[in-house]
Amino acid sequence: MAKVAVLGAGSWGTALSIVLADNKHEVRLWSHRPDQVQAINETSRNDRYLDAPIPDGVRAYEDMREAVADVDAIVIVVPTKAIREVSRELDGLAGPTTNIIHASKGIEPGTLKRVSQMISEEMPHYSYEDIVVLSGPSHAEEVAWRQPTTVTVASLNEQKAKHAQDLFINESFRVYTSTDLLGIEFGGALKNIIALGAGISDGLGYGDNAKAALITRGLAEISRLGTSMGANPLSFLGLSGVGDLIVTCTSTHSRNWRAGNLLGKGRSLEEVLNQMGMVVEGVRTVKAAHQFALEQKVEMPITSGLYQILFEEKNPKEVVEQLMNRTKREEMDDLAKLLTERYSH
Amino acid sequence: MAKVAVLGAGSWGTALSIVLADNKHEVRLWSHRPDQVQAINETSRNDRYLDAPIPDGVRAYEDMREAVADVDAIVIVVPTKAIREVSRELDGLAGPTTNIIHASKGIEPGTLKRVSQMISEEMPHYSYEDIVVLSGPSHAEEVAWRQPTTVTVASLNEQKAKHAQDLFINESFRVYTSTDLLGIEFGGALKNIIALGAGISDGLGYGDNAKAALITRGLAEISRLGTSMGANPLSFLGLSGVGDLIVTCTSTHSRNWRAGNLLGKGRSLEEVLNQMGMVVEGVRTVKAAHQFALEQKVEMPITSGLYQILFEEKNPKEVVEQLMNRTKREEMDDLAKLLTERYSH
Repeated sequence: MAKVAVLGAGSWGTALSIVLADNKHEVRLWSHRPDQVQAINETSRNDRYLDAPIPDGVRAYEDMREAVADVDAIVIVVPTKAIREVSRELDGLAGPTTNIIHASKGIEPGTLKRVSQMISEEMPHYSYEDIVVLSGPSHAEEVAWRQPTTVTVASLNEQKAKHAQDLFINESFRVYTSTDLLGIEFGGALKNIIALGAGISDGLGYGDNAKAALITRGLAEISRLGTSMGANPLSFLGLSGVGDLIVTCTSTHSRNWRAGNLLGKGRSLEEVLNQMGMVVEGVRTVKAAHQFALEQKVEMPITSGLYQILFEEKNPKEVVEQLMNRTKREEMDDLAKLLTERYSH
Repeated sequence: MAKVAVLGAGSWGTALSIVLADNKHEVRLWSHRPDQVQAINETSRNDRYLDAPIPDGVRAYEDMREAVADVDAIVIVVPTKAIREVSRELDGLAGPTTNIIHASKGIEPGTLKRVSQMISEEMPHYSYEDIVVLSGPSHAEEVAWRQPTTVTVASLNEQKAKHAQDLFINESFRVYTSTDLLGIEFGGALKNIIALGAGISDGLGYGDNAKAALITRGLAEISRLGTSMGANPLSFLGLSGVGDLIVTCTSTHSRNWRAGNLLGKGRSLEEVLNQMGMVVEGVRTVKAAHQFALEQKVEMPITSGLYQILFEEKNPKEVVEQLMNRTKREEMDDLAKLLTERYSH
């Protein structure tokens, strides 16, 4: 039995709280919205975000100080744009041995920082090496209904990853460990690019062959980028890579897929963003990956094509034709080179 | 312009003939059925197998000798069980420099031979090193309608693979080369195991999380097996691995998925095979992979679970629970070890 605070009462934070409560931990679910805190504590439901009952072991808190007092672990599950603010508030409150786990996906526009880097910058009392990420193919609703789900927890500090695994693992929620923090965070963030591309392909009326090609070639190029930045290429073959990609690209619920679909049907980026009325993480991620690719001198034809569609008003159909007519080549040349470099010393 | 014989006028052979005719080659489509040959030549259609017009450049032949006379390349696209017979007939007819390309997926029950090995055994006049395989995520109908499609051609003889690439590549059919014959053939065959598993998961009523986990962990275990047998692990990240897997596991048209779905709903293997009335390649492949795994001493928990469901009447739900409750572990340990061994010398 441990005490665990979950910061962020959206659908994913609530679902993770349910897993922790099933494991008999004392769970404190923090939200900055008093009405939501009250509703959770009075009705054992968080209807706006998750259609599932919340067990007794979960108690909602409005005061972060109270929520994190004496806890063994803190799970940060707020949107990327709120990570810095929440981490700053947390810095004075969390003990130095508290396990800090985050389950947010994204890359900060402008700075190109990953979530663990943002947390670390805002929490000088806490070591970057100790931060844990939790990521994998997981619709929150299915987790809340105890459908079989698998995720990976990664940290440079293997002991912290194992501690997180112990907290979450149970018979319907299987948790693997990894020490590739960068690769696991990158997989979760960059897969949104490919989901956007898959939506565009579907929107253009192309079939399963085109979509499978795009997902496969897209996976190869995010693996190339990640590997060139120090990630373990195997992470992209894992749950936070291929696994998350499959769930995202084949689900029409994905926000990124929907945005892509509208773009493929001929709408402009502005129209799409207006119509969706919310942040489309993939659009920001394309910009970030495009910048990374230039810096790392990594060839990313799909990302570059998406960049042209999104920010240079290039016609999606032309971009696909351009992708199909690239020079003939071997399937895995660049990645093989990167792997050989990695594993030969 | 080349002369190319395509042996086998099913949906995939017909679609590949259309690609070759689009590239202005003289295409001779062989079938052992006179009525089919007549229909194709008289109506320019092969309605039983493919709903698309066949271009003038394709002519159907009943006589294999006539079809392959003086051709530059022969594409074998018959079912796995007919490979040996067709190859035997072909052996005296094909010139020693003719490019032999096959586009069939499967492993021979009992002998556990791949398609290129079967061809090679029946064609002593032709070198195994020169055989080419063509594989990738490709519904035949979409190819016939010129939807964007990508495939890989692989041969131990790089020149033969490049020749095959030259024959097939065009603006809607993109062809990559590889020298990993074994990996590309294995990816195409073993993915049927995972499709069967995905069907069982859906049949049991589990959600996207479970299916994504199964596909990801299944990919890891077929990569482990293939790598232990000499395949390049990157091939499983490519079009004939991940790519083909995505198309197969997310399409409810897949025979393997449908068989799995019925098993998941509680039917016995006998009932399922009777109801489907045709060969389910994945069932035979589970048996083959199970045997390979024992010989290679490779851990394949999903394959082994499927083997128990298919051949030892174990309850599918129990098998899933058993898979979820394995010892806690690192995500990629075995594969990482194999990769390190491969790339460090």
